[in-house]
Amino acid sequence: MMSITSTADDPKAAESPTGLMPTGLIAPNLTPFNADFSIDTGRYVDHAQRLLATGCVGLAPFGTTGEALSVGIDERIATLRAVVDSGVDPARLMPGTGLTNLADTARLTSACMEIGCAGVMVLPPFYYKNVPDEGLYAYLAGLIETVDRDDLRICLYHIPPVAVVGFPVAVVARLRAAFPEQVVAIKDSSGDWSNVEALFGIDGLAVYPGTELFVIEAMKRGAPGCISALANINSRAIADVIESVAAGRLDEAETRQRPVAELRQLVQEYAPINAQKRLLALETGDDSWAIVRPPLVPLPEARGRELSQRLAPLR
Amino acid sequence: MMSITSTADDPKAAESPTGLMPTGLIAPNLTPFNADFSIDTGRYVDHAQRLLATGCVGLAPFGTTGEALSVGIDERIATLRAVVDSGVDPARLMPGTGLTNLADTARLTSACMEIGCAGVMVLPPFYYKNVPDEGLYAYLAGLIETVDRDDLRICLYHIPPVAVVGFPVAVVARLRAAFPEQVVAIKDSSGDWSNVEALFGIDGLAVYPGTELFVIEAMKRGAPGCISALANINSRAIADVIESVAAGRLDEAETRQRPVAELRQLVQEYAPINAQKRLLALETGDDSWAIVRPPLVPLPEARGRELSQRLAPLR
Repeated sequence: MMSITSTADDPKAAESPTGLMPTGLIAPNLTPFNADFSIDTGRYVDHAQRLLATGCVGLAPFGTTGEALSVGIDERIATLRAVVDSGVDPARLMPGTGLTNLADTARLTSACMEIGCAGVMVLPPFYYKNVPDEGLYAYLAGLIETVDRDDLRICLYHIPPVAVVGFPVAVVARLRAAFPEQVVAIKDSSGDWSNVEALFGIDGLAVYPGTELFVIEAMKRGAPGCISALANINSRAIADVIESVAAGRLDEAETRQRPVAELRQLVQEYAPINAQKRLLALETGDDSWAIVRPPLVPLPEARGRELSQRLAPLR
Repeated sequence: MMSITSTADDPKAAESPTGLMPTGLIAPNLTPFNADFSIDTGRYVDHAQRLLATGCVGLAPFGTTGEALSVGIDERIATLRAVVDSGVDPARLMPGTGLTNLADTARLTSACMEIGCAGVMVLPPFYYKNVPDEGLYAYLAGLIETVDRDDLRICLYHIPPVAVVGFPVAVVARLRAAFPEQVVAIKDSSGDWSNVEALFGIDGLAVYPGTELFVIEAMKRGAPGCISALANINSRAIADVIESVAAGRLDEAETRQRPVAELRQLVQEYAPINAQKRLLALETGDDSWAIVRPPLVPLPEARGRELSQRLAPLR
């Protein structure tokens, strides 16, 4: 496991143990839509660039927060191409590619690796429930075999509160042992510290907590940062916490963490995806930021103004 | 609502109230795979034809039982084309097309209607949980608008035990009222009779219980039959129950229903998809019938033999 003091003052300079992404904050960036629900590519690219300029070392496009499962395969590929065409280094991108079936997941994964992405973030197949560990293992093994690329890097995406199906620790350990070159990381959005902790027992695996609430403790255990939805509206402050930990200034990290945690908890009282979009609409003056794709619905403007006022002292 | 005595002795001759499919048994047909997990198209077509020749008035390819969510979009389209090319009337097909996003669901739905299918069976978008009724309504409305075909016919697919997200009765009623030409039916696989019963209150909607256990009571209330997974191994006996009800011979229906219900309950003690596939492997002597796609795993042969022996007195 890496030592936290082995990272330099600039966390961007330090490679994670697996080389997937530099140590730091990764943003599962929001997906802006037009009034007709098509992706607003210009705003998508601008937001991605802004996040990378304000503390994020990388992006995880098309995660849960990016309404990934409401976006089609070809739409995802076209949008990622536009981001790279705008000058973003694809090595800073780790898109979500997990669908419920192997054929389409492999197609999307291959396209992302072709674009030059650092790796991909893969959900377990999440339609069938209560599936055996053996089946989850076989699915991922089949995906790796089908994509068949030496440069494939996978960050397993464990988010049982939404996907219901998760990656049990035993399955993660088995995949890591069988495919040490490919299965290099996990994003744990279980919200359960004991699960995050158990994952640190898997040799050489980069464990990204899905919340900045765990990032100090996780980095002490070797985590290369975190992947947090709240990066969309609070990237600089979260990145500062990570920077303090990486530099070994733990007291400073704790102090910086307090308003960051409070902000997160306030946003969580609302529905986080549409709440953050509404906040961006209010802050940019561009109402279309509030648009979400069905089955989600926009946060009413009044609720957004209320939330914005509550957040003001923390920003 | 239709009267049960309005159907002729041959249930195939009677149109359902919505004209989607004749009254009778619809099979969510199993998807056979080769050892490399590709679809065995020849066996798929043979099984489809056998079901239509042994009591089924129609097929619902790529439902939950057909491992739909483990099959890619293009694989589904190619397989449906092969079925039609083999001589099956596409008006007997109502494939599942529901994914988590509108773009890909619309592409698959349009392809099915292009092939000439009677209609499509659509899951709610099932990744995001606890979504508001308004969002589910908007998703389906958007799908109908995007597909934009006068001949589009939708059977809503309500299966909360697997998909977790379902179609609340209020959403079904609103969709039916707004799109009476398109939203013509629902398959209710909730396993909850009170939900099936509530759906009969929606004018002109064809309500298919997802289990033959409810079919007698449901047909008394106007249901045009049922869509049952067990049709894959017990089509003739289930079709006989439906025929008795359609002819008004309710005592005969009850008598015929007893072994049918007992068989279903025995199979349900195992995992129904892989159990039925193992039974077909044993009965046809073709071991590849036992293959399921990950994340499912095959039923061990010994368990299949045990189940087969328990079922013998009922077949």
